Amino acid sequence: MKVPEAAISRLITYLRILEELEAQGVHRTSSEQLGELAQVTAFQVRKDLSYFGSYGTRGVGYTVPVLKRELRHILGLNRKWGLCIVGMGRLGSALADYPGFGESFELRGFFDVDPEKVGRPVRGGVIEHVDLLPQRVPGRIEIALLTVPREAAQKAADLLVAAGIKGILNFAPVVLEVPKEVAVENVDFLAGLTRLSFAILNPKWREEMMG
Amino acid sequence: MKVPEAAISRLITYLRILEELEAQGVHRTSSEQLGELAQVTAFQVRKDLSYFGSYGTRGVGYTVPVLKRELRHILGLNRKWGLCIVGMGRLGSALADYPGFGESFELRGFFDVDPEKVGRPVRGGVIEHVDLLPQRVPGRIEIALLTVPREAAQKAADLLVAAGIKGILNFAPVVLEVPKEVAVENVDFLAGLTRLSFAILNPKWREEMMG
Repeated sequence: MKVPEAAISRLITYLRILEELEAQGVHRTSSEQLGELAQVTAFQVRKDLSYFGSYGTRGVGYTVPVLKRELRHILGLNRKWGLCIVGMGRLGSALADYPGFGESFELRGFFDVDPEKVGRPVRGGVIEHVDLLPQRVPGRIEIALLTVPREAAQKAADLLVAAGIKGILNFAPVVLEVPKEVAVENVDFLAGLTRLSFAILNPKWREEMMG
Repeated sequence: MKVPEAAISRLITYLRILEELEAQGVHRTSSEQLGELAQVTAFQVRKDLSYFGSYGTRGVGYTVPVLKRELRHILGLNRKWGLCIVGMGRLGSALADYPGFGESFELRGFFDVDPEKVGRPVRGGVIEHVDLLPQRVPGRIEIALLTVPREAAQKAADLLVAAGIKGILNFAPVVLEVPKEVAVENVDFLAGLTRLSFAILNPKWREEMMG
């Protein structure tokens, strides 16, 4: 089973669509409908799901709440992940206030190096010094949202790795070096802008990509 | 030439690495070094570049400033893109203040529907009503940063499309429906968290992905 990374991203899209369908009171769907809403082919939907098992019934399609539950299970959203934010500048503070983390992700720590920020209350806690990471992370925090300035990102990542973090959501525009046991995802809007630049200049490429 | 989307993202990573090498005064590099820094194989680096031409010299490698210039050209960063922000809430305001857009991207408009926000000055301009998009976009703004709340995202996208936008960087956690001539990139940190969740639960999958 060699699941492409892009398939995981599409599963997340299918899950969003299923949640929307459920909110609209729709009980059954099909690979055709999911594909149309996700802007991929029905074949792609079936292929992406086939990596993980056999879902749906030929000619009948999928039951929305069942497929939704299966996707949540595949993606690990049926459990609760402990999060922390490292870097309580503007972006970190906005994330601390963000109401949409959902039931699978829980903010459990807020860290900075700035003595003026340490001790300040935020929604859900108090900002602590990054020196406390080794005491706060183990057994409690699996994923860090890294929102420090670019220059500070690698050093902060090193501290998180030493503290036993399992995954880092990196908002800084740098390629972090971490041991291979630690997962990294980059949230990188400049890369997104650059992909748009390429896509706008290469409309034929985009058509091919979209099947 | 069917260039995978992931190759474009890797080219962006290589470009970042080349910029860093240049800042360190490094003049020559190799697919081995680029691969190591980007955490992919040297073969992958050569393959990604081969979609666009023949770069470097066997046994000698790449000249950093030359390859950097070529990558900027491939990605469309050798020109200037006009940007606007639609949705001047906390995220939109933070983006309006963001100093790191670089020379290829220029903020040229700020839009909202809220009468209390319209008319307010921001760095680089004044917030205008989205009704002005048809007058502001043509010939001046190619890409919109869409930072409205989730419920407002599709309607705002429709306005942008009608105004002639070419690309949308969508920060809302929804799948936008746009005509196929309009490029969309999603900046979606909840999807990033979910990919981390999957990656942490599937360490073997991650190892395979990393070669």
